Amino acid sequence: MLEKFLQTIEEYNLIEVNEKIVVGVSGGPDSISLLHLLFTIKEKYNIQIYGVHLNHKYRGKEADEDAQYVHEFCTKLKIPCYVYSENVEEYSKKKGRSFEEGGRELRYKYFYEVLRKVGAKKIAVAQNLDDQAETMLMRFMRGSGIEGLCAMDYKRDEIIRPILNIRRKEIEKYCERHGLNPRIDKTNLESIYTRNRIRLELIPYISEHFNRNIKETLFRTSELIREDKKFLDECVKESYNRVIKEEVGKVIIDRLEFNKCHKAIQRRIIRECILYICSDLKNIEKKHVEELIKFIGMARSGSTIDLPKNLISLVKYEKVVIKKRENSKNKDFLYPVEIGKKIYIEELNGYIYGEIVSMDEYNSSNNGKYNMYFDFNETKELFIRNRRNGDKFKPLGLNGTKKLKDYFIDEKIPKDERSEIPILVSDDEILWVVGYRRSSLGKVKKNSERILRVSYIQE
Amino acid sequence: MLEKFLQTIEEYNLIEVNEKIVVGVSGGPDSISLLHLLFTIKEKYNIQIYGVHLNHKYRGKEADEDAQYVHEFCTKLKIPCYVYSENVEEYSKKKGRSFEEGGRELRYKYFYEVLRKVGAKKIAVAQNLDDQAETMLMRFMRGSGIEGLCAMDYKRDEIIRPILNIRRKEIEKYCERHGLNPRIDKTNLESIYTRNRIRLELIPYISEHFNRNIKETLFRTSELIREDKKFLDECVKESYNRVIKEEVGKVIIDRLEFNKCHKAIQRRIIRECILYICSDLKNIEKKHVEELIKFIGMARSGSTIDLPKNLISLVKYEKVVIKKRENSKNKDFLYPVEIGKKIYIEELNGYIYGEIVSMDEYNSSNNGKYNMYFDFNETKELFIRNRRNGDKFKPLGLNGTKKLKDYFIDEKIPKDERSEIPILVSDDEILWVVGYRRSSLGKVKKNSERILRVSYIQE
Repeated sequence: MLEKFLQTIEEYNLIEVNEKIVVGVSGGPDSISLLHLLFTIKEKYNIQIYGVHLNHKYRGKEADEDAQYVHEFCTKLKIPCYVYSENVEEYSKKKGRSFEEGGRELRYKYFYEVLRKVGAKKIAVAQNLDDQAETMLMRFMRGSGIEGLCAMDYKRDEIIRPILNIRRKEIEKYCERHGLNPRIDKTNLESIYTRNRIRLELIPYISEHFNRNIKETLFRTSELIREDKKFLDECVKESYNRVIKEEVGKVIIDRLEFNKCHKAIQRRIIRECILYICSDLKNIEKKHVEELIKFIGMARSGSTIDLPKNLISLVKYEKVVIKKRENSKNKDFLYPVEIGKKIYIEELNGYIYGEIVSMDEYNSSNNGKYNMYFDFNETKELFIRNRRNGDKFKPLGLNGTKKLKDYFIDEKIPKDERSEIPILVSDDEILWVVGYRRSSLGKVKKNSERILRVSYIQE
Repeated sequence: MLEKFLQTIEEYNLIEVNEKIVVGVSGGPDSISLLHLLFTIKEKYNIQIYGVHLNHKYRGKEADEDAQYVHEFCTKLKIPCYVYSENVEEYSKKKGRSFEEGGRELRYKYFYEVLRKVGAKKIAVAQNLDDQAETMLMRFMRGSGIEGLCAMDYKRDEIIRPILNIRRKEIEKYCERHGLNPRIDKTNLESIYTRNRIRLELIPYISEHFNRNIKETLFRTSELIREDKKFLDECVKESYNRVIKEEVGKVIIDRLEFNKCHKAIQRRIIRECILYICSDLKNIEKKHVEELIKFIGMARSGSTIDLPKNLISLVKYEKVVIKKRENSKNKDFLYPVEIGKKIYIEELNGYIYGEIVSMDEYNSSNNGKYNMYFDFNETKELFIRNRRNGDKFKPLGLNGTKKLKDYFIDEKIPKDERSEIPILVSDDEILWVVGYRRSSLGKVKKNSERILRVSYIQE
């Protein structure tokens, strides 16, 4: 394994001589092996290594023992070790992230903190081939073009992943062979819904019925697609510079040049433009990009088109401008709610987050003002939107149906605030007037199989 | 649905006025709807429609009734109908194809026959959005870069797929609404291992746990990737023409120009070169392409490198040549056996095909000279290869182990023929000396859960 590790480092230029390297260490087999491998080549490359561990405070005792173990392991190898503590669960809830996302955010925050403190230039993290395969599957199922299917790279900015091409099994063997006794991260085995389902159910299923080497296969796919992605990026950059003029808060598109570009490049130019103006692509879907491409291609001078994120595009003869519109209040909105994915509601500057939780987790919590539980099997397609004319619902505890308008009047909600109240609907039936009242639909029962928790987080 | 259909036809230029169109009609909801939709727009486009049906002779009575139904349906609409009959199961076995592949080959053979006979220019087939999603999943699991993940297109050569963006559910509703009473293809529900597993198990599973709109999601992904693929194709074509000189049976590569190309383009140029010389890419894996790219990049004049398919590449100063080597006999070979996939063994010009079959199918058949059954659960990674020094095996019915060499001597197989006998191995243990003797390993027992049938087909 050491040989493969060295080969990867050489092939992808991951480490330079005399460098300082920060290593993220959870205490599990992956990161402990990574640390040990780096330690092994310490003299060859004359590198200085710094361990960083985040005690996530989940399952108190075990998390503390993880931190203890990492600290001792580093001390034994005379590697400086930075241990931070933070309640990841609390943090994630507050920020409307999943536990996994929240943990990731915090870890990287501390990695970069140490990076700056010690003057390092690299952060080594311990994702392996199995992780990569899982990432591929996850992204494929969520719907990603080659942007997502290129998955994780060996190197990206300061981050390096020197054991990305090594199987989890090999890593475990390495730990045994060197008597490293890593900790087993219990959170991995239970609480992270999506990734664990992929690891423990989906991959074994695919492996049994379709492709026994599914992990290696997906890993190879990610490598191929990453090359393609890099090539496309270069093409896009070249075209973007030719076609787009950036100004403060807006871009100006040279129509003639834009129309000469291939559709695959046009799509990416549009995304780059929106990234420039808004710094993210939330709520921008394929169909919006398509519309805009058509618009740039054919619309007459003077035409305008509305886009999500409060953007507007207008034609001025041979130029097309994209910029922020001035006022967005009281606009209708509608977003599909996806389980396990935090959805940003631009109009409210808030997030809606739906997740499947266990009966235990449900019992130990309560429905709250911005936190509500439903019987997932009784829901259909979920959306979050603001009110529509004619909305009715069945407030829990009340007999029959009530017009939403009447409910708002009873609740003395001012007219101009009513459009800013998020409403959770299943198909088109109201489940929850967020912050106010739930309907009797989808109530959790004793025998409910799967429980959906929906949270709303105001930024 | 008619509206969407018309929109698709317009957007992708599928049909021109005054055309003749051949329509593949199985008699199922998809093809019957397609035929009916085309009939509906017959006058608008002034098209002439020809139905083609293949009676696959599987489950005799039902297949005959399908053919009967299609014939009557066409007659009612005054559409000329061509019905062909062929035993697809027999054909597929003979050719070493899966039932699905064999059926596909035959259908297209007859589609083109009618196309030529009536002077049509288009063949309309009835794949839908659900089929596309299944194709995506299948290819993703098998391991495909964007070449495969672009999936099926609305139009490719003579083939058009006008209902590719319509859900199966919608199609069924359409049939109901118009009282079309399509036939249900029973073979869909049972015998086609891979696709049905995807349809009936995997997609429902993903849909429940990860993404309820998985089909639409995958469909969108295929559209995005197809655009990227088209763009890349254009780039490759341009570079290929600049870098490659084709001669009879070989290509000559301009090294300097090749090395200037992006890796993503280099990979594809190499594949195009091999396609030119060999007309297929069987047995060419990612690693071979990588090796060759490195070789072209760095090897000194005079160096050579061997590739699969009996290819050789050699450097002549600033040029690199790829061509067929003269003699390939007695070369070692080794191919992984994949369930449900016909593997071509170039060295023998034959195929090996492994599939999972039911206990019934097993009972009604026999182990044959080129047809053998195993307990799938007792096998490990399967390969087909020729003999290696030191090979041993446990012939069924014999006590203990025998050297393969001794077995060959006992069987009086001439020395120079021994390397041309395919051997099925599980990891590195011999399961079957194809055409001769099986080992006692992996014997099917009464309680075997899954039975593997391996067939060898000599072209």
